[in-house]
Formats: sequence, structure tokens, C-alpha cells
Amino acid sequence: MIHAVVMAGGRGTRFWPLSRERRPKQVLPVVGGKTMIQETVERLSGVVPPERTYVVTGASHADEIRAQLPDIPAQNVIVEPAGRNTAPCVALASAIIKRLDPGGVMAVFPSDHVITNQDALYKAVDAVMAGIDGDRLALGVIGIKPHYPETGYGYIKTRARLGGPAMKAEEFLEKPDLATAERYVKSGNYYWNAGMFFWRADVILDEIGKSQPQTATAVIKLAEAFGTARFESLMAQTYPSLASISIDYAVMERAGAEGRIIAAVADPGWSDVGSWRSLYDLVPPDSEGNRARGKLIAVNSTGAFVHNDKRLVAVVGLDDVIVIETDDAILVCHKDHAQDVRQITEKLKERGLTGYL
Amino acid sequence: MIHAVVMAGGRGTRFWPLSRERRPKQVLPVVGGKTMIQETVERLSGVVPPERTYVVTGASHADEIRAQLPDIPAQNVIVEPAGRNTAPCVALASAIIKRLDPGGVMAVFPSDHVITNQDALYKAVDAVMAGIDGDRLALGVIGIKPHYPETGYGYIKTRARLGGPAMKAEEFLEKPDLATAERYVKSGNYYWNAGMFFWRADVILDEIGKSQPQTATAVIKLAEAFGTARFESLMAQTYPSLASISIDYAVMERAGAEGRIIAAVADPGWSDVGSWRSLYDLVPPDSEGNRARGKLIAVNSTGAFVHNDKRLVAVVGLDDVIVIETDDAILVCHKDHAQDVRQITEKLKERGLTGYL
Repeated sequence: MIHAVVMAGGRGTRFWPLSRERRPKQVLPVVGGKTMIQETVERLSGVVPPERTYVVTGASHADEIRAQLPDIPAQNVIVEPAGRNTAPCVALASAIIKRLDPGGVMAVFPSDHVITNQDALYKAVDAVMAGIDGDRLALGVIGIKPHYPETGYGYIKTRARLGGPAMKAEEFLEKPDLATAERYVKSGNYYWNAGMFFWRADVILDEIGKSQPQTATAVIKLAEAFGTARFESLMAQTYPSLASISIDYAVMERAGAEGRIIAAVADPGWSDVGSWRSLYDLVPPDSEGNRARGKLIAVNSTGAFVHNDKRLVAVVGLDDVIVIETDDAILVCHKDHAQDVRQITEKLKERGLTGYL
Repeated sequence: MIHAVVMAGGRGTRFWPLSRERRPKQVLPVVGGKTMIQETVERLSGVVPPERTYVVTGASHADEIRAQLPDIPAQNVIVEPAGRNTAPCVALASAIIKRLDPGGVMAVFPSDHVITNQDALYKAVDAVMAGIDGDRLALGVIGIKPHYPETGYGYIKTRARLGGPAMKAEEFLEKPDLATAERYVKSGNYYWNAGMFFWRADVILDEIGKSQPQTATAVIKLAEAFGTARFESLMAQTYPSLASISIDYAVMERAGAEGRIIAAVADPGWSDVGSWRSLYDLVPPDSEGNRARGKLIAVNSTGAFVHNDKRLVAVVGLDDVIVIETDDAILVCHKDHAQDVRQITEKLKERGLTGYL
């Protein structure tokens, strides 16, 4: 059976003022009327029923996530007492799924990415699942067709075509510099790493055990306690001491070299929504070239991106401006400076304005 | 005795979203904690007591103004059933003052201008009042030393010095084009017309009668009814039919040619606060070159002007931006486009968003 694991540990400081320490991007309606994690789980619901869907998140967001996802059993929202990057998170989920369904397959999704073409994603998922059916040791990923040389994403280098849209992946590559990214995009066999993974639970747990044996041992014990009163206290005792390491680094880089990774490539309108700028690119402009969620009046202005639920926004004599309004704060940002939004949280700390964090 | 007349009929569409049809600039705290009309009346209170201070305004703002100025007798807030420009307003006030104090002098002030150096203004008022004491037929004005070639103001051309800071004024000039304004400023004997007037009530009523005899006749009857139950209904019957004309055009242009105008010149930090840009120029910048009323975080940004009472504003990667927040709307404007804010109200009407007017 297929089980879905949604990783929901992100912080989203680049989405201030909408996202805050206690309300990260995944629990907010950044695009459309539902929150990003609701959109993610709804997208999965065609493939995996809620009782086989798991969410891994931090303690400060668990209650909110349980409230937002009422169809998912409360115990399936697994609380990390401390964030330890993706390898321990995947290991724990794989150990739990293996215990409940020894031959089970798991599909891992970030909770806060956007997909505008769901059907294109489904086709890629079908292809990668078929690949795992044909080779139980395979580790599956989705490679996203790159539209421009983004330096903020990791890349997957592909090799031989497997028949159908799946390919062998050869290398997992870190975020490149611009010249390298340009070379990747030009070559045609590099794809963006969307952070989605597909594998048998027993296989990935074995793989993690090869490089992180202590983690594997610990999560097997935790999985035995899953669903009992002991689970929470055992998590508190054990989990924070696990090595903080990404699944890319712990498993995927080596597995790529061993020829074990299959990548289904797709163009599903994906974005990691890493900044207001990337959201900007996702929203189609109106006839004046502006993009607004709520009411916008533009005078001698084009290229505006406005995220406003409550208040009318008027933009006068400014091009390419991003305006985000919340109950207690307003961001006004040039779209080419969207990465600098992170600096706001630093300045708020310096000034002691912690209520806005 | 001196009587003050505050003209409070303005609309202030260039101060959207702070000013609205029902809340024009003069009843709002645009600068500092008090509203502009409160600041104006407080500034006058050293010279004229509240019982001799009159405010002329429209019906939709009278209650608000009475509430904001509790020391001024309610009947001294005179309601125009319809705005008829400044000549009928001045005529009515002069007729009322003449009836109550036949030898009285009146000082006319706009309700929504800013003066940052009150003492400089007082000196000029003293000079102009001394001029009227010496020549009962004189019409007094304040000429503001121009700091740059503003094309949005009228100018007063001065001639011979009278001894002290008062001068004979020769011409009242309409808003010039830029080349003309530059010539005015360069010449050194042109001053901004601040819209402040000083004269004996009987003298100005006679002057208005010369060019607007029907207005003079009507306001004398209205003045007889002032303070009685008949006043409001008589105003409703009579006032809307008076010729709509400015006091500059009805009296001052001719009086200038006749050598009857004396101007006290001053540099009192005056602004008509005609747009957010002019307010911008009045607020001193912080160490990063930004000006904020409330909390501002600036990242890679300078020259911002932020009017925020409630919400924190963060500006990222933008220079010279004006951000104004209210409960229901946000304006984001480049400072060189502040005049275009007027266009917002037109667009709101086109789009049927009348709640924001």
C-alpha cells in the first residue's frame, strides 16, 4: 500500500509578514483559499487515504495542523521535539510505516510547495511508482523541468531513459552558482529537485541505517511505541539527540552514484514558494500587468504583486512592487529584493519588536 | 477687536486614503497628534479667544468640527449648505463680525495648512495688523518666502517696503508654470500666497459689494439672522444661489492694482500640505533617511515616508516610497507621483468601490 508522509517543519521567514514564527508558511493560505498543507494533503488524497497520511512537524504547529486536517487521525501528526533535518524525519516515518505495513511504499512530500498542474504531477507519480514496482530497491524522485537557471534549488542530473517518463538519475547536486545553473538548464538533462521522494519503507530504512545506524536503531524503537502513551516521552528523550542531516546527503548522493535512483520528470507548475518573488511568478497578471489577491487600484503602475485579504491597496507611480498586508504589519518590497525579506526578522530582533516575529 | 475666521471647506482628495469625502484633511491628525483644524485654532488662540473664532465648513463636517473644537461656541461653526468658494464665505463672516463688532478686524486662515515656526508667523501677523491699524482701508496678507519654484501655489508680487517686515503688494498671481515660477523665485520679490487675510470686516464687505453686490446684500440679511432659529433655513434658501468665486479674484487682484494690499513676509515653515509629498518635506528624516510616524523597518531602502498609526511597515529594496495605512486601505506611492493620488478616487468611482471614497 502507499503511505504519504508530509514534511511540515519549515519556518518561512521569507514570507514575513504573512508567515511568523508561530504561523509558518505551510499553515497559511499563501495561494488560494486553503492553507498550503491543506492544499498538499488534498492533492495527495486522490492517491492515499487520510488514515495512511502522516505529517511530521514541530511542537508549536501540531495543534494548528491537526485542526486544519481534521480527516487525518491525530496520532498521524507526528511531533518532532526538535527539528533534525530530513533524514531522521524520513527514518522515523519509514520505521512506523514498515511496522504497520511491512511491504508498504511511502511517498514523501514537502508541505509548503505549489503545484499548479496536478495532472502532470500525478502522471509523474504513476511513472515513479511503476519504477519502484519493477525494482523494489529503487529510490524514486520527481525531477522538475527547469524554466530558468534558478540558483536557489538543488538539481538532479539524469542519464538513461527507462521507457516512459522515468529516467535513471545520476547525481544529486547542491544549489549551483548562476553560471553552473545556466549550463545545467542549457544541457537539457538536469532537473530541479522538488524534494519529493518515493520508496519502500523497508528499503529506505535500510539505506539510512547504512550511513546513520544510530538513527535507524532509535527510530525502530520509536516506531514500536507509536500509537501508545509512551511515544511522546520517548520522542522527547531520543529524537533531539539524533544526527541532524538531510536525506539528500545521508542517502541520495550515494544512491545516485550507485545507479539506484529513478527520476520521473515533469512540468507540473511547481514552485517551492521560497520567497514572495516565486509566488509572484505563479499568479497570472491582469490586463494592466498587476497581480492582486484582493482589491487593487493601480495608477501609473505595472508589475505589482499584492497579497491583501482585508484592505484595499492602491499603488501609484511604482513598477514591480510587492505589497503584503496583515492585521499588524505591511511589507512593501521591490520584487528583485524578495530574498532580503529575511533581514526584516533580524532587524525586528535588534529593535526588540518581537511581537512581529 | 480681532476675530478669527477659519475656512474649513476643503476636500483633500490628494490625501487618500487618510482623507475621505466625509473625513477631509482638516479634521484629521495629518501632522502630530491633533487634527489640522485643532492645530490651526490652537495656533490662533494666543491672538483671538474662542468666542471670537468662527469656522465656516460644509454640512457633512460640522458635527465633527464642533466635537473637535469644544471651546468654540457651537453657533460659531457656520455651515455652508453648499460650497461657493471663498468670496461668499468671507463675505458672510465679515457681515456677521461687522454686526457684532462694527469696527472689528478679521483674520482669515485656512484650516488645513501647516506652520512649523509659530513665532515667525506671529511676527508677520503683528506687522500686518500694524499696517491695518495705520491704514484702515488696507487689505493684509502674509507672503511666504519661497524655497523652490513650486507650481502649485499662487504668488504675490511685492513692491516698496513699508518699514518693518510689511511691504506693498502689487500683484496677486495665479499658479505659474515652472519657468515662470523659477523666474519668480530668482527675482526675490515674489512670495507664496498662503491664503491668510487680514482686514476690517466693514472694509472687506464694502470691497466684496463692489464686485459682488448681490452677495453683499444677501450676507447682510444672513448676518441679521445669525444666532437665531431662522439662520439655518435662511442659509439653505439664500447661500447656494450666491456666485461661486474666490476672494482672490473678487477683490485681491483689483486691490493689488490699486495699491491697497500690504504683505508681511515671513518664513514660518508653511505648507498648504497639498499632497503627501508636501507632508514628506515637512518631516525630518531619521539616520537612514526615512520618515515614519509609526514603526518602520527599512532594508536597503532610503527616502521612505510612512504614515502608520497601527501597523508596522517594512520597506525592502525601494527608495523614495510613500506608504499610508488606514483601517481599510493602504496607499503605496512613489514620492514624485504624489499628485496622481487624486486619480485613485476617480478609479474607485469607475469600479464602484464607493465605500473607499
